[in-house]
Amino acid sequence: MHPALARLRTRLGPAGWLDQPAAMAPYLEESRARHHGAALAVVRPADTAAVAAVLAACHEAGVGMVPQGGNTGRCAGALPTAGQLVLSLARLDRIRAVDALDGSLTAEAGCILADVQAAARAHGRLFPLSLGAEGSCTIGGNLATNAGGLNVLRYGSARALCLGLEVVLADGRVWDGLRRLRKDNTGYDLRDLFIGSEGTLGVITAAVLRLFPLPERRATALAALADLDACLALLARARHASADTLTSFELLPRIGLDAAVRHVPGCRDPFDVAHAWCVLLELDGAGDAPAARLEALLADALAAGEIVDAATAASEAQAAALWRLREGLVEAQRHEGASIKHDVAVPVSRVPEFIRQASAACTALLPGVRPYPFGHVGDGNVHFNLSQPPGMAAADFLACWGRCERVVHDLVAACGGSFSAEHGVGRSKTGEMARYKSPLELELMRGIKRTLDPRGILNPGAVLPPG
Amino acid sequence: MHPALARLRTRLGPAGWLDQPAAMAPYLEESRARHHGAALAVVRPADTAAVAAVLAACHEAGVGMVPQGGNTGRCAGALPTAGQLVLSLARLDRIRAVDALDGSLTAEAGCILADVQAAARAHGRLFPLSLGAEGSCTIGGNLATNAGGLNVLRYGSARALCLGLEVVLADGRVWDGLRRLRKDNTGYDLRDLFIGSEGTLGVITAAVLRLFPLPERRATALAALADLDACLALLARARHASADTLTSFELLPRIGLDAAVRHVPGCRDPFDVAHAWCVLLELDGAGDAPAARLEALLADALAAGEIVDAATAASEAQAAALWRLREGLVEAQRHEGASIKHDVAVPVSRVPEFIRQASAACTALLPGVRPYPFGHVGDGNVHFNLSQPPGMAAADFLACWGRCERVVHDLVAACGGSFSAEHGVGRSKTGEMARYKSPLELELMRGIKRTLDPRGILNPGAVLPPG
Repeated sequence: MHPALARLRTRLGPAGWLDQPAAMAPYLEESRARHHGAALAVVRPADTAAVAAVLAACHEAGVGMVPQGGNTGRCAGALPTAGQLVLSLARLDRIRAVDALDGSLTAEAGCILADVQAAARAHGRLFPLSLGAEGSCTIGGNLATNAGGLNVLRYGSARALCLGLEVVLADGRVWDGLRRLRKDNTGYDLRDLFIGSEGTLGVITAAVLRLFPLPERRATALAALADLDACLALLARARHASADTLTSFELLPRIGLDAAVRHVPGCRDPFDVAHAWCVLLELDGAGDAPAARLEALLADALAAGEIVDAATAASEAQAAALWRLREGLVEAQRHEGASIKHDVAVPVSRVPEFIRQASAACTALLPGVRPYPFGHVGDGNVHFNLSQPPGMAAADFLACWGRCERVVHDLVAACGGSFSAEHGVGRSKTGEMARYKSPLELELMRGIKRTLDPRGILNPGAVLPPG
Repeated sequence: MHPALARLRTRLGPAGWLDQPAAMAPYLEESRARHHGAALAVVRPADTAAVAAVLAACHEAGVGMVPQGGNTGRCAGALPTAGQLVLSLARLDRIRAVDALDGSLTAEAGCILADVQAAARAHGRLFPLSLGAEGSCTIGGNLATNAGGLNVLRYGSARALCLGLEVVLADGRVWDGLRRLRKDNTGYDLRDLFIGSEGTLGVITAAVLRLFPLPERRATALAALADLDACLALLARARHASADTLTSFELLPRIGLDAAVRHVPGCRDPFDVAHAWCVLLELDGAGDAPAARLEALLADALAAGEIVDAATAASEAQAAALWRLREGLVEAQRHEGASIKHDVAVPVSRVPEFIRQASAACTALLPGVRPYPFGHVGDGNVHFNLSQPPGMAAADFLACWGRCERVVHDLVAACGGSFSAEHGVGRSKTGEMARYKSPLELELMRGIKRTLDPRGILNPGAVLPPG
């Protein structure tokens, strides 16, 4: 072991340096268990100074370091290789400050997202980032991957929710960018460069987050679309009629509703007719306004022929039941056999066209395959999943992953879209980076990487394909 | 002349290459006429390819290039030196596309901001960036300086309103980042690096902008605060009660109201009592909701003792009259003698404390000086201006600019604030960059600058202090 690492081991002590296989195991496996890694050790520093010591040692020793938050990523971005260190930020879990009048909260990177939400709520404020993994993902990981989720339509992705950062640089120096400012035009936007860089430019150790008024009420409905195209008119109507307080606009396809009802306890389709496409709408606001607005806009949408039916939640329990369908649809897919998944974005106005084209192309490629497209279509973000054809062996289906991905991502590119809307690149999608990004854009990114990480120790192999 | 420049002159022709003093004059003077520049020539390319030719020639010749939009900057960011070229983007003035369903508009850099707003409105959409210079500033300059203005509270600064960019790089290559996506997590955030870099990392030639629903109604009021501190409680109340649809929250001090009423035709104080501090609130929304919400929240604020009176606009004409006070206050200051100006930001919760401390410190430094603080306090952004002491010669007062600036900016720094909230750095504030930015942050910025502009031809001398 390089002397710098040996000194680091001593400094961190047994609570901060794990190298036994059993202790390391949970850090070396991605949640979906599609990927397995290896590592020299897992380090668990307790504060920013200790993180700085880890990076300084890695820099000196020329050893790669893979930062890890809640290890809930989807793209193997936190997966190390033998000889590297895993840097767990889990012990940096303090909420350092909350200022309700300011609308800001300062959290360390290892804070669980749900705990950040709760701390804001305890001060009468909303931290709107919300996603399936919120009970175990960390705010540092959310920022490193620019997480999206359910409320992007109104509140933006993680990037839009961050005012300032503390970042440990490749050589162990600490950049203090923990500003609480809404406006600051003094030089280059370093903050947004680190956000979304997946730990390849620096390690986020703390962040100042933006808080919002806690909405008094939410109004929720499931609307049955006249057809897929109608989702665009309904979205424009809902944004307008709600004065752009629409927080969620989620597409639910028939196949997903059926699967949720079939496999997930408590899921019930509120309609008697099996509508092909539904949208879950939610808006927030004060007093009775959200419910009244939602009722009115749905009545107008019905009259305009955009929707054919709607179920409005009359209570929080009914709203939860509608959300249960949306979440159940994700959970239910694994009961329908193997899945091939794509997290793509296209311009909002091209969502229906994209879904139709991608469904046709995948069906042509793999007769009997069942397209399972759902998600945040208000943001142009479709989780374009596929369920295996009935009767086909799971392994044979999964062997087609690459071919399906090519067909789907080529269509996405033709629509001016993104092959990774909210999950990031990690290690799984560096091949897509090489294929779909222009050589010029890759050159710019590589230049920035070299400038900030000249020895290439920060999350090696993530984000950028080999040059 | 370097042969590359001679070739460029031929290529651009007489409409694209101005080198006569009279023709160049308007490009060499900043609007406030505090700064005068010189140049080898002013080039006026007509499209992106011609901009690329300009940069390629400058790169080859090693000649500095200063991009210029509407030349409405406040910090000499578009001011050239002898031997340099001014690159005017004025001829790149096409709206390339508007997609109402998508909520996006693609504009070339030289489009006047007001024309962009109008194009959005013609499609039933809002482009919310709004500032005093909107009739002559250009969207390219707005993005290069990350412009703020009157609607930041709800809609964000220019950065938050941009989905994609087309940028000509230092060597004349064109980065096509003209994406229309709400979500895209595929690599480093180059877009936000170019935004706010004031033309020192590349030249923005076109942008995809975000559009919003056109608000049906706006509700506007002027509220008289119980005291300065009460602005914080009123802001929190207004954000909450309006479900965060508050678009403007502007502070108007007594001195500014008096000056506006005295010097600007049509300005009238709606109150019989001379209140020390007023706030202009505006929120937007659908139907009668904004007006009802504003009335209700002002009644609650009155009951809570946060405000002592309020004048609500009952018509668009009355709303315009209230805005006239806000704008008149700026115009009126020059009738009150010479001014020293600061465009600073502090955390929102520290605005009252900052205004008190800065007023006291400036008065101690310069007895009789009249603090004139106003502006976007909902964003923590105070235009902390000073009017000359009665009886003092203007020149003597202006000679104190540096000392006043030091006192004010030191207090801003102590509050964790920014010495340039929305005006940028340009050439006037590079000394402040050297003083207030950490050496580490400057080093990071310089590294990025070298990577993207190795020959230092992009707006030399702007943003970064000499290394």
